[in-house]
Amino acid sequence: MFEPRVVSVGLPLFAAELARLAVPVLDVDWRPPAGGNARLATLLARLDAGRDEVERANARVFDLLVEGRPFLVDCRPAHEALELPERVVLHAGPPVAWERMCEPMRAAVACAIRYEDWAANDDAAEALVRDGRVRLAPCHDWKTVGPMTGMVTRSMPVFVVENRAHGNRAHATINEGLGRVLRFGATDDSVIARLRWLATEAGPLLGAALRASGGIDLRAHMAQALRMGDEMHQRNVAASALLVRALMPHVARVGGRHGAVARLAEFVAGNDQFFLNLAMAAGKALAAPAGGVAHSTLVTAMARNGTDFGIRVSALGDRWFTAPVETPVGLYFPGFGPDDANPDLGDSAIVETIGLGGGAMAASPAVARFVGAGGVAEALAVTAEIREICHGEHPYFLIPALDERGAPAGIDVRRVVETGIAPLINTGIAGKKAGTGQVGAGVVRAPLACFEQALEALLP
Amino acid sequence: MFEPRVVSVGLPLFAAELARLAVPVLDVDWRPPAGGNARLATLLARLDAGRDEVERANARVFDLLVEGRPFLVDCRPAHEALELPERVVLHAGPPVAWERMCEPMRAAVACAIRYEDWAANDDAAEALVRDGRVRLAPCHDWKTVGPMTGMVTRSMPVFVVENRAHGNRAHATINEGLGRVLRFGATDDSVIARLRWLATEAGPLLGAALRASGGIDLRAHMAQALRMGDEMHQRNVAASALLVRALMPHVARVGGRHGAVARLAEFVAGNDQFFLNLAMAAGKALAAPAGGVAHSTLVTAMARNGTDFGIRVSALGDRWFTAPVETPVGLYFPGFGPDDANPDLGDSAIVETIGLGGGAMAASPAVARFVGAGGVAEALAVTAEIREICHGEHPYFLIPALDERGAPAGIDVRRVVETGIAPLINTGIAGKKAGTGQVGAGVVRAPLACFEQALEALLP
Repeated sequence: MFEPRVVSVGLPLFAAELARLAVPVLDVDWRPPAGGNARLATLLARLDAGRDEVERANARVFDLLVEGRPFLVDCRPAHEALELPERVVLHAGPPVAWERMCEPMRAAVACAIRYEDWAANDDAAEALVRDGRVRLAPCHDWKTVGPMTGMVTRSMPVFVVENRAHGNRAHATINEGLGRVLRFGATDDSVIARLRWLATEAGPLLGAALRASGGIDLRAHMAQALRMGDEMHQRNVAASALLVRALMPHVARVGGRHGAVARLAEFVAGNDQFFLNLAMAAGKALAAPAGGVAHSTLVTAMARNGTDFGIRVSALGDRWFTAPVETPVGLYFPGFGPDDANPDLGDSAIVETIGLGGGAMAASPAVARFVGAGGVAEALAVTAEIREICHGEHPYFLIPALDERGAPAGIDVRRVVETGIAPLINTGIAGKKAGTGQVGAGVVRAPLACFEQALEALLP
Repeated sequence: MFEPRVVSVGLPLFAAELARLAVPVLDVDWRPPAGGNARLATLLARLDAGRDEVERANARVFDLLVEGRPFLVDCRPAHEALELPERVVLHAGPPVAWERMCEPMRAAVACAIRYEDWAANDDAAEALVRDGRVRLAPCHDWKTVGPMTGMVTRSMPVFVVENRAHGNRAHATINEGLGRVLRFGATDDSVIARLRWLATEAGPLLGAALRASGGIDLRAHMAQALRMGDEMHQRNVAASALLVRALMPHVARVGGRHGAVARLAEFVAGNDQFFLNLAMAAGKALAAPAGGVAHSTLVTAMARNGTDFGIRVSALGDRWFTAPVETPVGLYFPGFGPDDANPDLGDSAIVETIGLGGGAMAASPAVARFVGAGGVAEALAVTAEIREICHGEHPYFLIPALDERGAPAGIDVRRVVETGIAPLINTGIAGKKAGTGQVGAGVVRAPLACFEQALEALLP
């Protein structure tokens, strides 16, 4: 009963023809490394010579990324938590000058300046930036991560996440909710009114509650939420509800001011993405100690500013490797379409850096509808693909749909270049016109050029 | 390239032998209806003669079961909500006399009597029951469902669920949490202290909050939670967290008494099964209007009292069809094992009656570890099996792991008898010794005899 079998490697034409003739064939989807680019293939081969050293370094960085213990411990104004000075505006992504900034980020900067009362209108705000009296800096340089435009100024409250395995801290603002919000570049009076309420009432109440709580274990929350259909970038409903449930006893206990507890409870009850900023701060708290390990080719940050996409690689420290950012493909709110979309922005891709978001799609088939047909098969395929470019599987972020297999984690620059598979990022979509706010949600690929540059830098 | 193929129907031996000889064979797992029982097969054939009438009736009952709109509207003492008189103790399951009651239910009855101050000790309490000065009645006869022992007495607060599609109401007590609690037959002072706190502080606060809320849509919560890994019998963590998040703004707004809001928030934050009682009350609110439809062979209640398992069938109204209840198979808390398990009890199988619990296992692979090897394949297999005995698929309870296919709903007595597949019920396990409390969790099958009796009654 045994017959000869055919294995076809590479070009699918041979296999297709044999299949047409009903000859059993195993088709191996082989492609030349680095898409056939000889220079990159040579670099990969040179790195391979020091393979053991690289593998040891990557194993250590992987451990740092996955074994950290991020706890949510406080919420304080940025001038206290970060010692952020007057007249500094933090933004998402790698550094970008005002002249190259996209419209929604410019609008958000001007709005943040008005919110701080450093200028009375957008023109005056822009003048302050142009002549250097207000400075711009990336959140990442201030132990902070900001979603979308990523605005942080000194009076804004920031969550404080402490990585108890290493003692470092990371920060993120309070998620404002969906739609017309500062992070998506909306700038009207309701945006500023909400920011003031966050600073004067919600932030102080959350801070007092968190200090009373002794700290909330975010890794445990993320692990639990991943079991409940969140991939924690585009879907955070489980993590948000679990966090609110854990937080409310402390809020109620410290909440003296009449109505403040109820207003906060209502705000968080209406915001399914409340946890996103906490997942981001946890990601930054986990990734920060993983930077600067010699020989490691693992990615320690991915971030976008609406103009550039940037990555950091462990062995290369705080250096950014940037390329023009792509525009997400996705689904739009009624009345909006692809023509309204800004190129991708935000520090939120830090969640993909630690094994959540796009690569954890298998946990979240509902999110898979943003990529192709959606559904279970698509979700599993995305995670399987991202596994090819990752160092390992997360020991705590387990996915029930994969029978408790861990989410792929630790993106390896070598594997990205070798396979040509770019990390997939689940993301919101901002309107490209200033003041629009969110117009949809979708997915975007990190540009391969960032990884190719990093590979070059790894072997100077 | 075409060869003859073999289809083997029935005994697997033929197919196995051909497979051994490497002959392609399609093995159809056919079994004679009703396990070859000629009398039951005849009854099924007689029912089949009136098939159209039955199908029409079942379609209507299925609609009633799935299209109802249960809203959580209030929480009030049972003497207000149910007009439950003095000296009545409601229990789970079909009717059962004191003499036939299992130990944990007897202990719970005595404890409930002490809690109401109708007797000072268990002996006096038992005497009241034995000589009829305290009456026992099933929860189901009082528009109520009770988990495990199912105790309800007049001063206990009950949630009120209104089915807004039909105007009927159903009720359930507040879930007490895990471990040493009255519903599992624990009876110590901490149990009574918790019941008093529920009656004097938590219940009134929940009631005021719910009345202020205007009602919370439980079907929407259940549909959402099913997408988040709950099957809402053994796993309610998503539903509980979502409900708490929706409820807390109202609790905070009405909560005047210092500390009461914080105590309630802490209680619900520590109870992943808080929602179970609400899923049950929703189930009763949905199932009640589905009872009493002539010719319908769909099940409208399944309940256990630790001695008997009972079912109700739509066409047969409030009549119970009972058989000895089985003991669950499952996993035990440290220090306990199968020898400590009481036979199954509780009205909670109402959730299986409306398409959740065991039949929705595909939504909840984590729960599938209680049946065999567990994991995704096991979870999908359970749901596929239960689909064989159900009228249809739920239009709102959709399962992402099945690419948005609905959970099987509407158990059909005919199909149960014909296939020999008994409904699978996910359940907690009570200690059989009075006062022990919960010892584990597992699964149990409804006895086929209940369904066979009902079939006989359908064709007298």
